[in-house]
Amino acid sequence: MSVTFARGFRAAGVTAGMKPSGRPDLGLLVADEGRSAAGLFTTNAFAAAPVRLSRHRVARGGARAVLVNSGQANAGTGLSGDNDAERSTAAAAELLGLEPDAMLACSTGVIGEPLHMDQLLAALPGLAGSLSPEGGESFAEAIMTTDTKPKQARAERGPYRVGGCAKGVGMIAPDLHLATMLAFVTTDAPVPSAELRKLAADVLEPKFESLTVDGCTSTNDTVLLFASGAADGDLVVPGTSPWEDVSAALDEVGTSLLLQLAADAEGAGHVVLVEVSGAESVSEARMVAKAVADSLLVKTAVFGGDPNPGRILQAVGSSGASFLPQLVDAFIGDVQVIAGGEIPAAYREAGVEEARAAVKEREVVIGVSVGNGPGHTQVLGVDLSYDYVKINAEYST
Amino acid sequence: MSVTFARGFRAAGVTAGMKPSGRPDLGLLVADEGRSAAGLFTTNAFAAAPVRLSRHRVARGGARAVLVNSGQANAGTGLSGDNDAERSTAAAAELLGLEPDAMLACSTGVIGEPLHMDQLLAALPGLAGSLSPEGGESFAEAIMTTDTKPKQARAERGPYRVGGCAKGVGMIAPDLHLATMLAFVTTDAPVPSAELRKLAADVLEPKFESLTVDGCTSTNDTVLLFASGAADGDLVVPGTSPWEDVSAALDEVGTSLLLQLAADAEGAGHVVLVEVSGAESVSEARMVAKAVADSLLVKTAVFGGDPNPGRILQAVGSSGASFLPQLVDAFIGDVQVIAGGEIPAAYREAGVEEARAAVKEREVVIGVSVGNGPGHTQVLGVDLSYDYVKINAEYST
Repeated sequence: MSVTFARGFRAAGVTAGMKPSGRPDLGLLVADEGRSAAGLFTTNAFAAAPVRLSRHRVARGGARAVLVNSGQANAGTGLSGDNDAERSTAAAAELLGLEPDAMLACSTGVIGEPLHMDQLLAALPGLAGSLSPEGGESFAEAIMTTDTKPKQARAERGPYRVGGCAKGVGMIAPDLHLATMLAFVTTDAPVPSAELRKLAADVLEPKFESLTVDGCTSTNDTVLLFASGAADGDLVVPGTSPWEDVSAALDEVGTSLLLQLAADAEGAGHVVLVEVSGAESVSEARMVAKAVADSLLVKTAVFGGDPNPGRILQAVGSSGASFLPQLVDAFIGDVQVIAGGEIPAAYREAGVEEARAAVKEREVVIGVSVGNGPGHTQVLGVDLSYDYVKINAEYST
Repeated sequence: MSVTFARGFRAAGVTAGMKPSGRPDLGLLVADEGRSAAGLFTTNAFAAAPVRLSRHRVARGGARAVLVNSGQANAGTGLSGDNDAERSTAAAAELLGLEPDAMLACSTGVIGEPLHMDQLLAALPGLAGSLSPEGGESFAEAIMTTDTKPKQARAERGPYRVGGCAKGVGMIAPDLHLATMLAFVTTDAPVPSAELRKLAADVLEPKFESLTVDGCTSTNDTVLLFASGAADGDLVVPGTSPWEDVSAALDEVGTSLLLQLAADAEGAGHVVLVEVSGAESVSEARMVAKAVADSLLVKTAVFGGDPNPGRILQAVGSSGASFLPQLVDAFIGDVQVIAGGEIPAAYREAGVEEARAAVKEREVVIGVSVGNGPGHTQVLGVDLSYDYVKINAEYST
């Protein structure tokens, strides 16, 4: 039930005909008594019309619903794109008896193509009419583009429930303030607006930032977090046990969605977890982790089942982070492949086969220590396969 | 004859047996009366032993020869790698009656594997004995790794000749101070050391920096420029017509080598020239150009023959450069695909087929203007094909 696992939410998804495939392409999620909403948005300079609209409305407060379409991204569409986002959310809000500002918007699909407004507007009454507390699954399906399956998660702590769903298999990069995707997370805990923003920033943002598929960041990235307050339970504020409960449930849902996104990344056969420690700061650790996870040579080596310490060395060395080369160690799984900045003889003589086995795992763990500093981080990447090229070369405008 | 087109140079290449393929793998280039040498070196933190040795010796002055091996990169090899670089250049220098410091070293091949010193030392006398003013071609062949053909160029201006050769088909990125490759350029013009360094920095560095294949930068990148002074002609100093002549000849040789490198890039079917103008500075322009040229989504779109303005928009927007989105224009060939930050209706209605034809050219030109600033630059990239994945997934350690 994903987003409707948390009490106080209704959702639905329908086929409006905006996608050529004829699959479901329009979803609606509503908090019956929305208490608060928080959002994380792309930092791409060409933020899409729905991103600009939602960012503004989340900042004003009072948002408690979101209309999501797949098929067109409504990005690179100028003023008429803004008008389309405005009109479609106004129509949805009116059907639900909400203020227009209570309705947010997300779009995903082809950049530059105007929203198919006729189909969207014609489908809205049916969509609103089918809203239900069991609608999470059909909502999760309606937001998909090239995803092979919906991504859904739920968690429960004490009296509180958290649910979520996400889409996004390409264009996922950690460089920006969040990974490129759409994700919707709901909770029935009573969380005031400021505290909900803090939860989004503290728990969800670092998590979604840590995912990279191809270093590209979309114009439409959005993570929305809604609180309905429908659960019995104390107010959720920092320093209390309700805060710990909700944080833990959000963390669990975020982690699950993240792993599902990576596992379904375009053409990916392996998830590559890069763990960096010992950097001078978190941002320096991030530079190193991202350099390794985004290195085409590392990604193709993982695809080829080849433990290639030289490519890890090369990626770390070109990351731009500052460290002493002679302090750098690296591991593939449990096998040390770089020791003090060198590829050790012990590895070449006895470690290659064990490292090769580690690279053939579905989840490949590459650990890098660059010194004795406090900065550490994780980045989740994927391999680069023929299928990645195929999917992206044939995905036409 | 490439590097031996310039008078006063001898070169040779032999098969020492350091490469499993049994192809030529050891080359030697010597200026009979070396007047001066200049070098550009990788900024990778794990600079290989030969890079550290050559950087030091070029800075001291007096270098006039270089020993180049393919097969092992002698990177990630620690102190014993330094000893190997020292011993091999000392042996080569002794055979030629040169001071050890006059001999530079370059290595290319597998990272982390020690130099095959036995084969190298055994092959040196034969290599030195086969040096000749006609040896440029065999030298150019000995430095190849996965290159499908040698890259050679020559130019002549007035009394001066310039020759050059290069290798390097993967791991080429412009982010660092030079593109990842080995290149050797020679001139018979009489150029003092300081002026030769200036020519390398002014003419060769920006050129080699503009090439990107996969955003990865090797531990071994080196461009060496030698002047023999063997030509009749005035001393080459700035503000004179000899300076103009030698600059122009260097530019011609550099451009030719660059295009040959891009054309032979791993798995590349298209060269993608990204021209950015109107940025606030050259470095801002560079951020934009590199974001477009390195975007996996743009690269796969070019491979697929798909003019995809949305992916260009996305790449420009995520570049981190500062600009006003509403001032951004972009062209594929002559077709405007972004106007004022939007994908214009005129393009969608009438421009797609013409843009598709432009993307199917062997050389694809993507022009981006991000405002009215003075910063402009060019970056040369390539598409991303099945063959790129194949070559890099199967290239084993």
